[in-house]
Amino acid sequence: ACMEAHNQGRTKFMDFPYVSAPHRDLMLDLVSTLENRLGSQLLPCTLPPDVQYYQNQTGTASATLHVRSGHKPSQIDFILGSWIHSELPTGGALNITSLSAYLNSSTDAPNFLIELIQGSPTSLVLILDLPPRKELVLYPDYIQTFYEDTQLETRRQVLEKIPEVVPYVSSSLYIRSLVSPTAIMARIDTGASGPGRMEEVVKSSINPIAKELLEIWLDRCACEEREVAEVERAYLEKRDGLVKKKTIEIDLGMSLPRLFGQEVTDRILESLQEFFTA
Amino acid sequence: ACMEAHNQGRTKFMDFPYVSAPHRDLMLDLVSTLENRLGSQLLPCTLPPDVQYYQNQTGTASATLHVRSGHKPSQIDFILGSWIHSELPTGGALNITSLSAYLNSSTDAPNFLIELIQGSPTSLVLILDLPPRKELVLYPDYIQTFYEDTQLETRRQVLEKIPEVVPYVSSSLYIRSLVSPTAIMARIDTGASGPGRMEEVVKSSINPIAKELLEIWLDRCACEEREVAEVERAYLEKRDGLVKKKTIEIDLGMSLPRLFGQEVTDRILESLQEFFTA
Repeated sequence: ACMEAHNQGRTKFMDFPYVSAPHRDLMLDLVSTLENRLGSQLLPCTLPPDVQYYQNQTGTASATLHVRSGHKPSQIDFILGSWIHSELPTGGALNITSLSAYLNSSTDAPNFLIELIQGSPTSLVLILDLPPRKELVLYPDYIQTFYEDTQLETRRQVLEKIPEVVPYVSSSLYIRSLVSPTAIMARIDTGASGPGRMEEVVKSSINPIAKELLEIWLDRCACEEREVAEVERAYLEKRDGLVKKKTIEIDLGMSLPRLFGQEVTDRILESLQEFFTA
Repeated sequence: ACMEAHNQGRTKFMDFPYVSAPHRDLMLDLVSTLENRLGSQLLPCTLPPDVQYYQNQTGTASATLHVRSGHKPSQIDFILGSWIHSELPTGGALNITSLSAYLNSSTDAPNFLIELIQGSPTSLVLILDLPPRKELVLYPDYIQTFYEDTQLETRRQVLEKIPEVVPYVSSSLYIRSLVSPTAIMARIDTGASGPGRMEEVVKSSINPIAKELLEIWLDRCACEEREVAEVERAYLEKRDGLVKKKTIEIDLGMSLPRLFGQEVTDRILESLQEFFTA
C-alpha cells in the first residue's frame, strides 16, 4: 500500500500538467537525474495520499508534494519536490514548481534548491542555489571549495546578462540570509516579446545552468565525503533544523492558507513536521 | 607629539580635496556626527604621520587614513576613515572615501560601513550597511531587531528606485557573505544626465539615507547595551578578528599595491595590523 501510494503520488507529481513544455522538461530532467544518481539511497515517499496531492474546496487550486528520505547510511536527509497551481481571479494562473535536496549532518556540504514561480506566461521568478550549511564569513575555505572552485559565479552572470532578466530580491530577509553569495535570484519578464521568448529562455538558458548546478551538487556535495567533527555535527543539526523550520514557515506557511485554506494547510504542515524537525 | 600628529592627520583627512561638494559634505557630516556622539569614547589617532597621509612615488596617487580606537569601557573597537585619490591613465581620477565603525565583543550589535567609489564624475558605487556580527540564519531575532524593526529595507528600496541606480555586485564572494540582507550595494550611472545629476543624487538621496543609517547605528548598536554571554564573547572575538583580517586583505590588499606600490602597501598594512588582530 505504501509503495502504491508512492507510485501514484510520483506519477501525479511528475505530470507537471500546468506548465509549458520546456518548464516541464526541465523539472523532469532534474528529478530524473537526482533519482538516477541517488536511486537506492532514497526511500519511497511515505506521505499520505491526501498530502501527496491536494486541492482547495472549489478545485481552482491543486498541488503535489513528493518527499523521499535518505537511507540511514546515506548523506541524504531528504529530497522534496512539489508543484502548486492556482487559478488567479484575473484569469491567469500561478504555477510554482520546486525541487530541493537536503543533506544530513554526516557532511557539511551545501544543499540544492531550485524554485520557479510563474505568475503569468511572460513572467517568471527563478531561485537556483546551493545554499551553504556553515557560516561563510568564518570559513573562507568553504567559499573557495563550493562557490569559487565550482565557478558558480560565471553561471550566475550568464543568466544575469540575459536582457529580460532583472535581479529578484526576496521579501523575506531570512531567505536572503540563507542563500549563497552566488545564488541565482532572477526575475524574467518577456512581456514585450511574449510567452515564446519565455519558453526559449527556460529551454536554452535556465535548463542547462540548472542541470550543471545539480551535477555539481551531486558530484561535490551529495556524493563526496567530508570530515565532520562531533561538535560540528551538533552545530549542523541545530542549524539545519532551524533553517528547515523557518524555510517551511516562510515558503508554505505564507502561501498555502491563501491558496488552499487553513484546514488543508494544517494537514500539509503537520505531515511535513517529521522531516523538518528530525 | 601624538596629539599633534592626530590633529594634522585629521585635518588632512577631513579635507576630502578631490571629491564634489555634496560628496565632501556627506563625509564631513558623517564623521562629525560620529565624533560628536562618541567623542570622549574615542582615543586620538596614533598612526604614524606617513600612514595617516601617503602618496605614490610620482605623486599621482595620495591617500589618508584616520583610525581611532575606543576607550576600554566603551563598546567601540575602533572607527576607520579614509580617502584614496588616484589619477587615471585615461585622464580622469578614481576617488574612494570610506568610513567604518567596529564594535567590540562587549556587544553583538552590527558594525557600520559606508564606502563611495567614484570612478568618474558620472559613475559611483555606494556600499552602505550595518554588517551583522552573528550568523543570521541561526538568530531570526537578530534580523528582527536590527534589520526589520529599523526598517532598513525601506531605505534600500528608496535608493533602488532611483532611475540611474542598478544593483552593485561585489566581485568578492567574501564581501557578499559579509553584508546584511538589507545592504545597499548600488551602482549609480548618470552618464546621459551628467555630473550635475550625480551631485544631486548624492545630496538629495544618498546623504539623508546615510545619515539615517548612522543615527540608527548610533542609537541601536553603538550606544545601547546588549547581554553577551561568555561563550558568545569568544565567538565574537574569533569572528570579528577574521572578518577584519579578510576585509583589509580584500579591500586594501587588492588595490593598494596597484596604486601605491608594494613598499607603501607594506607600511600601511603593517600599521593596521594592531587594529585588525586585537
